Amino acid sequence: MAQNAPRKAGRHFLQIPGPSPVPERVLTAIARQTIDHRGPDFGKLGLSVLDGMRSIFKTKGAVVIYPASGTGAWEAALANTLSPGDKVLMVETGHFATLWKTMAGKLGIETTFIGSDWRTGADAGQIEQALRADSGHTFKAVCVVHNETSTGCTSRIDEVRKAIDAAKHPALLMVDTISSLASIDYRHDEWGVDVTVAGSQKGLMLPPGLSFNAISEKALAAAKAAKLPRSFWVWDEMIAAGKSGYFPYTPATNLLYGLDEAIKMLHEEGLDNVFARHDRLAEATRRAVTAWGLDILCKDPKYYSSVLTGVVMPDGVDADAVRATILDAFDMSLGTGLSKVSKKIFRIGHLGDINDLTLVGALAGVEMGLGLANVPHSKGGVQAAMDYLAASAKKAA
Amino acid sequence: MAQNAPRKAGRHFLQIPGPSPVPERVLTAIARQTIDHRGPDFGKLGLSVLDGMRSIFKTKGAVVIYPASGTGAWEAALANTLSPGDKVLMVETGHFATLWKTMAGKLGIETTFIGSDWRTGADAGQIEQALRADSGHTFKAVCVVHNETSTGCTSRIDEVRKAIDAAKHPALLMVDTISSLASIDYRHDEWGVDVTVAGSQKGLMLPPGLSFNAISEKALAAAKAAKLPRSFWVWDEMIAAGKSGYFPYTPATNLLYGLDEAIKMLHEEGLDNVFARHDRLAEATRRAVTAWGLDILCKDPKYYSSVLTGVVMPDGVDADAVRATILDAFDMSLGTGLSKVSKKIFRIGHLGDINDLTLVGALAGVEMGLGLANVPHSKGGVQAAMDYLAASAKKAA
Amino acid sequence: MAQNAPRKAGRHFLQIPGPSPVPERVLTAIARQTIDHRGPDFGKLGLSVLDGMRSIFKTKGAVVIYPASGTGAWEAALANTLSPGDKVLMVETGHFATLWKTMAGKLGIETTFIGSDWRTGADAGQIEQALRADSGHTFKAVCVVHNETSTGCTSRIDEVRKAIDAAKHPALLMVDTISSLASIDYRHDEWGVDVTVAGSQKGLMLPPGLSFNAISEKALAAAKAAKLPRSFWVWDEMIAAGKSGYFPYTPATNLLYGLDEAIKMLHEEGLDNVFARHDRLAEATRRAVTAWGLDILCKDPKYYSSVLTGVVMPDGVDADAVRATILDAFDMSLGTGLSKVSKKIFRIGHLGDINDLTLVGALAGVEMGLGLANVPHSKGGVQAAMDYLAASAKKAA
Amino acid sequence: MAQNAPRKAGRHFLQIPGPSPVPERVLTAIARQTIDHRGPDFGKLGLSVLDGMRSIFKTKGAVVIYPASGTGAWEAALANTLSPGDKVLMVETGHFATLWKTMAGKLGIETTFIGSDWRTGADAGQIEQALRADSGHTFKAVCVVHNETSTGCTSRIDEVRKAIDAAKHPALLMVDTISSLASIDYRHDEWGVDVTVAGSQKGLMLPPGLSFNAISEKALAAAKAAKLPRSFWVWDEMIAAGKSGYFPYTPATNLLYGLDEAIKMLHEEGLDNVFARHDRLAEATRRAVTAWGLDILCKDPKYYSSVLTGVVMPDGVDADAVRATILDAFDMSLGTGLSKVSKKIFRIGHLGDINDLTLVGALAGVEMGLGLANVPHSKGGVQAAMDYLAASAKKAA
Repeated sequence: MAQNAPRKAGRHFLQIPGPSPVPERVLTAIARQTIDHRGPDFGKLGLSVLDGMRSIFKTKGAVVIYPASGTGAWEAALANTLSPGDKVLMVETGHFATLWKTMAGKLGIETTFIGSDWRTGADAGQIEQALRADSGHTFKAVCVVHNETSTGCTSRIDEVRKAIDAAKHPALLMVDTISSLASIDYRHDEWGVDVTVAGSQKGLMLPPGLSFNAISEKALAAAKAAKLPRSFWVWDEMIAAGKSGYFPYTPATNLLYGLDEAIKMLHEEGLDNVFARHDRLAEATRRAVTAWGLDILCKDPKYYSSVLTGVVMPDGVDADAVRATILDAFDMSLGTGLSKVSKKIFRIGHLGDINDLTLVGALAGVEMGLGLANVPHSKGGVQAAMDYLAASAKKAA
Repeated sequence: MAQNAPRKAGRHFLQIPGPSPVPERVLTAIARQTIDHRGPDFGKLGLSVLDGMRSIFKTKGAVVIYPASGTGAWEAALANTLSPGDKVLMVETGHFATLWKTMAGKLGIETTFIGSDWRTGADAGQIEQALRADSGHTFKAVCVVHNETSTGCTSRIDEVRKAIDAAKHPALLMVDTISSLASIDYRHDEWGVDVTVAGSQKGLMLPPGLSFNAISEKALAAAKAAKLPRSFWVWDEMIAAGKSGYFPYTPATNLLYGLDEAIKMLHEEGLDNVFARHDRLAEATRRAVTAWGLDILCKDPKYYSSVLTGVVMPDGVDADAVRATILDAFDMSLGTGLSKVSKKIFRIGHLGDINDLTLVGALAGVEMGLGLANVPHSKGGVQAAMDYLAASAKKAA
Repeated sequence: MAQNAPRKAGRHFLQIPGPSPVPERVLTAIARQTIDHRGPDFGKLGLSVLDGMRSIFKTKGAVVIYPASGTGAWEAALANTLSPGDKVLMVETGHFATLWKTMAGKLGIETTFIGSDWRTGADAGQIEQALRADSGHTFKAVCVVHNETSTGCTSRIDEVRKAIDAAKHPALLMVDTISSLASIDYRHDEWGVDVTVAGSQKGLMLPPGLSFNAISEKALAAAKAAKLPRSFWVWDEMIAAGKSGYFPYTPATNLLYGLDEAIKMLHEEGLDNVFARHDRLAEATRRAVTAWGLDILCKDPKYYSSVLTGVVMPDGVDADAVRATILDAFDMSLGTGLSKVSKKIFRIGHLGDINDLTLVGALAGVEMGLGLANVPHSKGGVQAAMDYLAASAKKAA
Repeated sequence: MAQNAPRKAGRHFLQIPGPSPVPERVLTAIARQTIDHRGPDFGKLGLSVLDGMRSIFKTKGAVVIYPASGTGAWEAALANTLSPGDKVLMVETGHFATLWKTMAGKLGIETTFIGSDWRTGADAGQIEQALRADSGHTFKAVCVVHNETSTGCTSRIDEVRKAIDAAKHPALLMVDTISSLASIDYRHDEWGVDVTVAGSQKGLMLPPGLSFNAISEKALAAAKAAKLPRSFWVWDEMIAAGKSGYFPYTPATNLLYGLDEAIKMLHEEGLDNVFARHDRLAEATRRAVTAWGLDILCKDPKYYSSVLTGVVMPDGVDADAVRATILDAFDMSLGTGLSKVSKKIFRIGHLGDINDLTLVGALAGVEMGLGLANVPHSKGGVQAAMDYLAASAKKAA
């Protein structure tokens, strides 16, 4: 590709909020020869990745792995638990929450959408209020995006849980963790989530192509009554086959090789270390943005995302032109502003297999790019990030 | 995996009818670093694979690529074109045709299933008869599996087309080519197919994880009226985004790298050479089976499959025990008998990136395994295959 | 490469007597990012491969690893132990023994060469006789090739040792195991070898590019007095640096990654199992050759090689033309006849990461190729090999 | 390796002055299955890499490729052209020049060594003077290191050439370009170099394991008379076999795959662009060092190296302790100070497949590490580098 332009030397900086850079160990794992997905070696692999994913979701319950990208796991969550005409309560945290709502509509679900300015996380208070108002318990589910990839706001799922409990509402809680899982702490069982939706290409450090549902007993019970037509996404056959490590239809074997390796790597680092690393890199990024004199899209520190930071451009600046300048001059990809914030922001991904020096390189690309693109800003963002990183670096024992 | 047993040396023989062995060039392609699926380099890749797939399907029409395994593309074909309660005519060529029928039922479609003993291809005459009888044109589609992976019978899609035309029936023609595409000649446009369903892990020589629909104008028109709920599988957004090489949601980027390479390899060999190679290896296999004194599941040479050969075990022999013996002694995977023919047959895959010597090795594994498992048979199958291969080998100019 | 010809499908059969096919695990190991060869992680790797190579050589003594192919390790053996004008006794087992003798000559060493018809191993009796005749102990070393890659004869190093002892001669014993190590049992310490020479691309299942010396205390002592100029090949600096896992100059890091993996694989299979596997595949090959009515180059079963089999063509047949036919028709590489046996024989390699079915495929390529090339022969070689392999196959417990 | 410590996330920064980071395209090339080095496909590869290396050396003359790391190519240059007792004039540019001199001594060559403080390049005036004084033309060769990897000083080979010519001295000119080739402009033919020595693991972006000699007609003539014993390193057999793309003994096939790819990549970027990129990154690095208030080891800008920068630590600071701190805290490898400058300097490599953002990341690691290690310095080095990089960045057309 790009055969006409001279080759660009060195490593491309993939700083979009996912897919995140895939580690060499995962890339070589997925390059192994494909095996018989009905043979004995596969069963061992299947059990290993299913067990592993339970440890990542922090659940003892059912997990299914789809040979499909993340959008599919959204559909699976809805199609397995709901019937045509059912109502669900959704929260407009941003573009991806909106897409999920649109999907629900296409599947024949009625949605109530709690609006937002895309600059905070889900408001647990509003959820509680909406549920209390629903005395007939018409809402079959509450759907929330844990980390809004389009904005860089992370909702508090523990608070949402408390809100549902406070309202004594029987709705299922469904959570999209596509861009948070394995980057930000997440607790499927402890937080009483009924269906967690996840994907492979973010904190799990894989290429896209796998997606996941973690499923509570309550959701499994709901699935028995749910009437939406479904076949590919059906849980029960996946769960039954999964007990021995197999799949009812052909799985994405090579990506499962990578998943097995990625889970191993996450545990080698330690999940808590993984989360702390993301928190620290995110804080460094915010200090850079602040030093540049630019606004972080997420207004409320309570909801700051450790996965990505949305950077608001001054009025009159086309954020996509800035991104193009940076891609051209420094071979770095940043995330575009989507929908409501199109051309107003760009997004810096700082998730997955990333470390201090890569982050500083990325921030340098932004700072230099702001200059090249004539965006009004102060220098010193990289310096601010370095000051923070150095101060918080682990010193040798 | 299999850590407790001593390592088995040498290359595993993956002789199931798919996934087929993935060539080194494809494996290294999928191990490349993931890129931004919204960046300019991706658009070039997307256009390249979409154009390439058109050349493989032999269509000038629309092609969509799903980040999902083949079963998903079945659902896409149905969900995009049909409405709840619609009737379709399906043909029981074997296990996979039956699964497709079951799927249709789950999605709320009524199916009429033309029965079969699983030992031939679809009977075009029966299809014509059924359609002529349907004077009210209640069948919205005729669904046929091109190559039945469970039996090794290949249906004649050109004849099915003629049958529909002869009956002057407006039903859509939908064809599953999951195990035939890029192994057996297939002509989406010429044969007037409306929806072709395909997967990555057979003739396309990729790991599983991608699937395809090739779509006629007539099918696109039907999609406008179709009322089955759908979101992930929706065609129109895929087609619209595909015009510039992009996808409406995250694609399976690394598998697309492999697809691009695989398409290049198929054209380097030449599609007609690819088909002739499969025909020749299949004939060699059948000669081996015949020399062993065993039955080929497919009774009618007209429907012989160039992709796999189903081998019928004598009464009282458990075909799965034979497979287990062969796997244990010779590290070769064969396909199991499914459903109706469970334990009665095994299947030898001879598709994808395979050549003469690998086939002979595989047939030797079967012949030696028949002996080890005490299956009554004559020796000489490998010799018969070699005689045919040598007689038909290309000599240097 | 070969861009003009249509692509050949399937796996190339690399049946030369080395380089042998490199297993996927080794290929992916050598594709890991290069690390600092002076950093702490490297030291661990270095210690691991040096320890591992000791287990393969069966020595507790010094081992050095050169970032150079096997020919270099021959030079190292000579240059470290000898002085200009020194005499050594060498045995003409075939082409490679002759090359080693030529090398010694170039380095200023006088060689006495025990002649041979290239159809047996080294004659321990002749060695003993020559040493007894050398009452002045002018021979500083006896140099023998363990497995002659050019002929397929394996010499008995234990007998050579006994011959030297019987003659009470103080000469060093130097043995080339380039094509035998890790395929045929070899015991550096037990057999009292002073310098063992080895390479990476045969039984060690690596690409070429590494070579080895295993060194006795006696050889180390000889090195102190040896006057041949040397620098790159100098042992003492390699041994000193190796104690902490490092090298005095830049090592071939990525091949060392592969070596570490290959050693692990050999031990996973078990060295005795590795040797037994080679013995069995060699016997199957010889049965095929005999059934074809062709001569095995090695006349004496005592010296049959488990690594390769030299096949003698009938008079008037150009063995290289047969090889070319086989390469063209069946995409298999066989070894050419070298020097004295040029065009008279071809060599079938059956070493390294190879199993039963691959061997049968290879033998089928030979048998079919004999036919295509109109070489007078009987069919049935493949059948004979299969009969032996099936009879000797391990049955499941 | 390092199994006990928790996994470090993200990409290791390999900022030693070689081996340099190996690009993904090269890594996947070397992971291809090994082929028969005597078969027809190999010949095409061999011709391609030999032609390619001529384009990199800028020579129309002979090039040989050794399956050995760079130190071997030093030995080859000496062993092919000299006789025992010959005198050569060498220049002490640093540690590697000293090692080359030591090697010459081991091989029986007498060396005259022009001393230096390791802070400049070779002094052409001194060379001229020494040669003029040698009226008997006893010096058979002048040996100079183009880029001293131990110091970061690049000598002016064009000036050395002029000095030899001015002195009308017939000595051969031998140049070590191990760390300069393909990073800094180099012209074997134009500068009248007789033997150029090179290695794979620096500007050629390969793992270590290949080395090179480019050889003038005059050097080939000298080789005919040279009496040093040699075998592995002999030129004539390599050159003869190379005419058809082959090697007299087993080549390092897989590294040659990588070399073919690397040469292609260098030409895709354009050699002049490659050199300009190195110049620019080196200047950015020096600006950082200067801003930190630290000394660059190379005192004279005329000799600044575009490959690496030696950074002098203030008195009392152990440079290796600083390196250890940086490795531990930021997972970056820097080059150690060697011999005369041990513990006094560290070296920043900025060569090979590297770009702006990776360099800034590396400089950030140094700046933060200086702080962590309590090295007296001013902040602002990274900022200075960024200012220069942004100012000199290519803007889109």
